[in-house]
Amino acid sequence: MKILVTAACAVFTSIGCAYAQAPEPASAPALTQEQQRTVDRLIDEGLEDDLAWELLESLTTEIGPRLGGSPAEARARDWGVAKLKALGFKNVRIETFEMPYWERDEESARIVSPFPQELKISALGNSVATPEGGVTAEVVRFRTLLDLQDAPLEGFEGKLIFVDEVMARTQDGSGYGWAVAKRSGAANEAARRGAAVALIRSAGTSHGRTPHTGNMRYEEDITPVPIAALSNPDADLLSLAMRRAGGPVNVNVNISVNTKTVVESGNVIGEIPGKTDEIILIGGHLDSWDLGTGAVDDGAGVAITTAAAKLIDELRGKPARTIRVIMWGAEEVGLLGAQAYAQAHADELHRHVLASESDFGAGRVWQFRTGFAEEDLPKAQVYQKALRRLGIGPGHNMAGGGPDVTPLRRAGVPVFRLYQDGSDYFDLHHTMEDTLDKVDPAALRQNVAAWAAAVYIASELEGDYRASDAE
Amino acid sequence: MKILVTAACAVFTSIGCAYAQAPEPASAPALTQEQQRTVDRLIDEGLEDDLAWELLESLTTEIGPRLGGSPAEARARDWGVAKLKALGFKNVRIETFEMPYWERDEESARIVSPFPQELKISALGNSVATPEGGVTAEVVRFRTLLDLQDAPLEGFEGKLIFVDEVMARTQDGSGYGWAVAKRSGAANEAARRGAAVALIRSAGTSHGRTPHTGNMRYEEDITPVPIAALSNPDADLLSLAMRRAGGPVNVNVNISVNTKTVVESGNVIGEIPGKTDEIILIGGHLDSWDLGTGAVDDGAGVAITTAAAKLIDELRGKPARTIRVIMWGAEEVGLLGAQAYAQAHADELHRHVLASESDFGAGRVWQFRTGFAEEDLPKAQVYQKALRRLGIGPGHNMAGGGPDVTPLRRAGVPVFRLYQDGSDYFDLHHTMEDTLDKVDPAALRQNVAAWAAAVYIASELEGDYRASDAE
Repeated sequence: MKILVTAACAVFTSIGCAYAQAPEPASAPALTQEQQRTVDRLIDEGLEDDLAWELLESLTTEIGPRLGGSPAEARARDWGVAKLKALGFKNVRIETFEMPYWERDEESARIVSPFPQELKISALGNSVATPEGGVTAEVVRFRTLLDLQDAPLEGFEGKLIFVDEVMARTQDGSGYGWAVAKRSGAANEAARRGAAVALIRSAGTSHGRTPHTGNMRYEEDITPVPIAALSNPDADLLSLAMRRAGGPVNVNVNISVNTKTVVESGNVIGEIPGKTDEIILIGGHLDSWDLGTGAVDDGAGVAITTAAAKLIDELRGKPARTIRVIMWGAEEVGLLGAQAYAQAHADELHRHVLASESDFGAGRVWQFRTGFAEEDLPKAQVYQKALRRLGIGPGHNMAGGGPDVTPLRRAGVPVFRLYQDGSDYFDLHHTMEDTLDKVDPAALRQNVAAWAAAVYIASELEGDYRASDAE
Repeated sequence: MKILVTAACAVFTSIGCAYAQAPEPASAPALTQEQQRTVDRLIDEGLEDDLAWELLESLTTEIGPRLGGSPAEARARDWGVAKLKALGFKNVRIETFEMPYWERDEESARIVSPFPQELKISALGNSVATPEGGVTAEVVRFRTLLDLQDAPLEGFEGKLIFVDEVMARTQDGSGYGWAVAKRSGAANEAARRGAAVALIRSAGTSHGRTPHTGNMRYEEDITPVPIAALSNPDADLLSLAMRRAGGPVNVNVNISVNTKTVVESGNVIGEIPGKTDEIILIGGHLDSWDLGTGAVDDGAGVAITTAAAKLIDELRGKPARTIRVIMWGAEEVGLLGAQAYAQAHADELHRHVLASESDFGAGRVWQFRTGFAEEDLPKAQVYQKALRRLGIGPGHNMAGGGPDVTPLRRAGVPVFRLYQDGSDYFDLHHTMEDTLDKVDPAALRQNVAAWAAAVYIASELEGDYRASDAE
């Protein structure tokens, strides 16, 4: 038996093997034959689904960029309410919350000497402005954030600190952790050293001149330093200019921003009511960065989960559990909708059986990951078997469930994640290139099929995913 | 014999077969064994050449964008003179000429109603400005320029005319002819109909939000209409907005430009003097559009031809004919350097044995095309045989020789062209994406090898390429 399992393991990752080795309990969870037929039917229908594309085309065309807290995000909420109502969702509502507001105004950069030419930048979310006319400073380059962290605290006063760290292209997005560290770390490390301004090589994998943006936070007790990202080609150019200059390279960076102390945002919520008050919570985030039209981040997630829930709603009879779809507000600027929801719904989190967000683009799902109690892991195999025909393999049990699910996960809500192929996600993510034409309609349908199947199983399969002592 | 030739033809295009069928004359032109060895050596050395990359990196980093007639183009001329002198070229000089000047200032566009959002545009070269604050007009869409040409002259007063014609992706750039027709035709057709402004779908094949620019000319006796290109994703968006609006779509376009009546430009010239006063003229154009750093258009052509000539200069002994390298000025804005040269050198054009320009990017050469007198076509086979090891096949005899060679060709100078693979050229050409990182160093070396071989043969092979009655 053990030998057989080991042989089978050769085709899995070492992490995947954890499942292969898990012994099937006497009373292994299973779908009824009727439920299995329904899962297959949902997958068949998902693979022909047009609704997700229709929603995504509508959102990106009729609303476009929708920065958290902006008037465009408010229009997107109205759009979400109208769509959910038209699709027959119940209890459709907006749960509002307050938030601070930041938006870019103008931004530009140029090599002043010795080789004058323009550089393409995007200010990072929450960056302070430069003085009017910008700041001109000598560039000091660091290959990685680590090099900057290791640098002395003296000797960089008034300089431009340039962190030239390249982001890794990966299928699972695992290169993003270091990229985020760079995004938040560079300005803080620069501030600690009295630098005038900071630039980072884009936290993106594209060779386009389309620098990414993304949120950063200043630590307390520092004097904030303005920060922007250079596109990869522009980071190459600055790096080459430094190598060829044989002396100082001076760059001017000009950033202006608008901020407000308090504006309104909100989560849009709709439901397919179930036979019980238990909840399967799914969704994507409605806000986007301002540069693109938010197609892959995260119009796709909104569209996929809404379309999947709608497919389940079209089955005869109510689902066993309520399927709650949330179009999260203000995710990009600090998971603000997620925090507001976790707070407002603290009393009913015990009724949240499973939660998951689709927020990693519009690529095909390639892996099913879980965040279940160990003793409930055999249930993961029910999902994995059902999803196998979609080319989705088993993944580990350390899933976070998606950004907006993080506060729920921390509060003990079990999660799953349908992991999308993100090999080209960071070519688009947080840049002006995040537009509808980058989405593959066939991949979008595969997502809808996977979500419809997984959410249906989550609704119908008996038992929960929490450790016994938490039940 | 005929049957054998026909069988061989199966692997060529019908055009290529013209050569396979050409009978070898009794005194077929040929290289000596020594010359053949030199050709092979030049190819070997070209395939290891670092000079072209060094020149291209230097030009794009230290000068960057260099619009015809601009101060940056003047700096590029000084750069060219310094490089040619440092490389040992003789008779290095700038031949100046005067030209009118146009540059973009600001440009923006947005859908005003019913779905407000930004559109990415680039004004076309020579466009007039809009009134301050821009012009807002209802969009009328035409699928192609032909549809617009067929439309009545009434009914479009004050409208925004949008020509949504898609450009074909081709290896040989044959999609560009219609794209240029659209670029020049759209504003003139719009003006004839009293439209307020015109937009075209980018004359480019990229899915990036990086609209192309390029020159256009207003016809006489019309009131010029401002014109810009929309990136492909933005043209998609505008088209979708019109389909979803169910009513008028209004767009604001705002363009400001600066113009001057007379500025100076020039051609940079250097030579490898030969044993005779006959000239083989090669080069690329030094000016670029303003949006990118002019790496593929046409820093690559400047770098390739300079490096190839330098390789020949390193052989022992003078070449038979003089190799004249020209870094052409102000090509993009109307072949102004080419016209100035043809005029200034009218008296010595009979001594120009062959001319050619490298100006189609930095992709691998895949075909050798000629513009020879029919009776000199057997000589083409000498080149083709030598280039075969580089993966270069035979092409037709209708080559133009390259944009800046056009006036020489018209004056009777024979030409050849080393045709580069342009499959992705129009993803970059005339956009901000025309930067160094898009160039493949190995492909650049293959170009240098092909040019060194072809130019050496052009210098050494006896006889010329003109019809007998022209000799």
